[in-house]
Amino acid sequence: MSDTLSSRMLVNTLGIPGILLMIWLGGLWFTMFTTVVMLLAIREFYQINSTQGSAPLLWLGWIVTLGIGMMYYNPGALADNYMVGAIVGFFLVGMVIELFRDKPNPTRNIAITFLGIFYIPILLGTLISLRQMDTVHYSHLTFGLFISIWMCDSAAYLIGKKWGRKKIFKRISPNKSIVGCVAGLVGAGVVFVIMHSFNLLGSQFDWNDVVVFSFIAGVVGQIGDFIESMFKRDMNVKDTGQFLMGHGGVLDRFDSLILASPFLFIYLKLLH
Amino acid sequence: MSDTLSSRMLVNTLGIPGILLMIWLGGLWFTMFTTVVMLLAIREFYQINSTQGSAPLLWLGWIVTLGIGMMYYNPGALADNYMVGAIVGFFLVGMVIELFRDKPNPTRNIAITFLGIFYIPILLGTLISLRQMDTVHYSHLTFGLFISIWMCDSAAYLIGKKWGRKKIFKRISPNKSIVGCVAGLVGAGVVFVIMHSFNLLGSQFDWNDVVVFSFIAGVVGQIGDFIESMFKRDMNVKDTGQFLMGHGGVLDRFDSLILASPFLFIYLKLLH
Repeated sequence: MSDTLSSRMLVNTLGIPGILLMIWLGGLWFTMFTTVVMLLAIREFYQINSTQGSAPLLWLGWIVTLGIGMMYYNPGALADNYMVGAIVGFFLVGMVIELFRDKPNPTRNIAITFLGIFYIPILLGTLISLRQMDTVHYSHLTFGLFISIWMCDSAAYLIGKKWGRKKIFKRISPNKSIVGCVAGLVGAGVVFVIMHSFNLLGSQFDWNDVVVFSFIAGVVGQIGDFIESMFKRDMNVKDTGQFLMGHGGVLDRFDSLILASPFLFIYLKLLH
Repeated sequence: MSDTLSSRMLVNTLGIPGILLMIWLGGLWFTMFTTVVMLLAIREFYQINSTQGSAPLLWLGWIVTLGIGMMYYNPGALADNYMVGAIVGFFLVGMVIELFRDKPNPTRNIAITFLGIFYIPILLGTLISLRQMDTVHYSHLTFGLFISIWMCDSAAYLIGKKWGRKKIFKRISPNKSIVGCVAGLVGAGVVFVIMHSFNLLGSQFDWNDVVVFSFIAGVVGQIGDFIESMFKRDMNVKDTGQFLMGHGGVLDRFDSLILASPFLFIYLKLLH
């Protein structure tokens, strides 16, 4: 057994039950967990961009990440004028800091700083609101989202490795096959079908919702994976970090959720 | 009289009364005027960034600009979940488009697209909400903001040209002098002092507010000018466009308002 494989197993053995515990505890626990993930992930995002000469404002990104974490913790979330005002204020501050910073490529530094804030806390932070929205059935939905994305990844990897021939998007992800992606979607769907069959998702959801949830985890989630690959490929890096030995960086582990979570949040909050 | 000078006078002769008329009409008129300014300005911002190899998504920027204009027209403004959800949705769409677009520097293309949306419609669009907030005294305040920023520019230019020796921020704006900037602040302040003395600002404002308004128009506005200069200097361009002959681009004319307007909006909405 290779070092990488055994350390992967270590991360899984500790990580999966740890995350499930945090979802179960909810509230401040899950908020703190997600916020720590976002702080690590935004640092990784800025680091991979630094390889191409950008110098994003990490401290600003961290402060705004903490603020956005608190904003999503509040169930009023996006409707909170003070928080939105504060975020716009910090963006203004970022532009003024860059003015006095005298670094090359100020436009790009600001642009990457803001993109990181959008990509990590604004998108991924919706996980916090999702868990906060309801004490019972949205915690089940949060469980479902994480588990179906893990199933999607695993099914795509295992089936794709064994039967995948034709590649789906070679320019961005040279290893991903069509068969693997379809297997991922099926894997994601199976989780929600089982949960709904055993009445675990709550009575406010029907089979149409199961289809939407499966699409979000299995299709949107995989697109999130491609988007992160695009960022990495653009910067010529393979992993976003070494934080999780053999698992790449934190960003690599949460790339599907970065896209799937805001879609689920918008669906429940505005369309359901 | 040079061509440039005479065309400057033409723009002033038509532009200044035109803008004052739009402020006076308010409502949809002022919203449409500001939206057109934003559509032109975001195109200029993307164009100057294109000179350094970025390829921002102009159409996405335009669609989001229209959406944000409508959002600010609604007095509920930032509290509207649907609009915020829609903006986040369009950002997600932008990342997915970039995935399939196969252009160089995808990260930078997305980052500059988003920065343009933040810099122009999100910041400058607050002008619309400012005018919408009250039918009488905020229209006076909108008049005051525009006039004091024009006074600030003119005083800074004329006094600075005649008596300005020591430069204030040579790296960013080689022509701006300390004397000119102080004259600009005084010019901006005089407008609000006169307006308040004649009771034109409305009884809900006192002399403390006059100090804050003068600071926003005379200091924050000039910082906005420096920030736009930083963007232009970074891209090695002098004017953002030729739209207003001799006046540079639309962005050059609204650079102070881009920063002053959101500060005034946040002050009135959250702090006053």
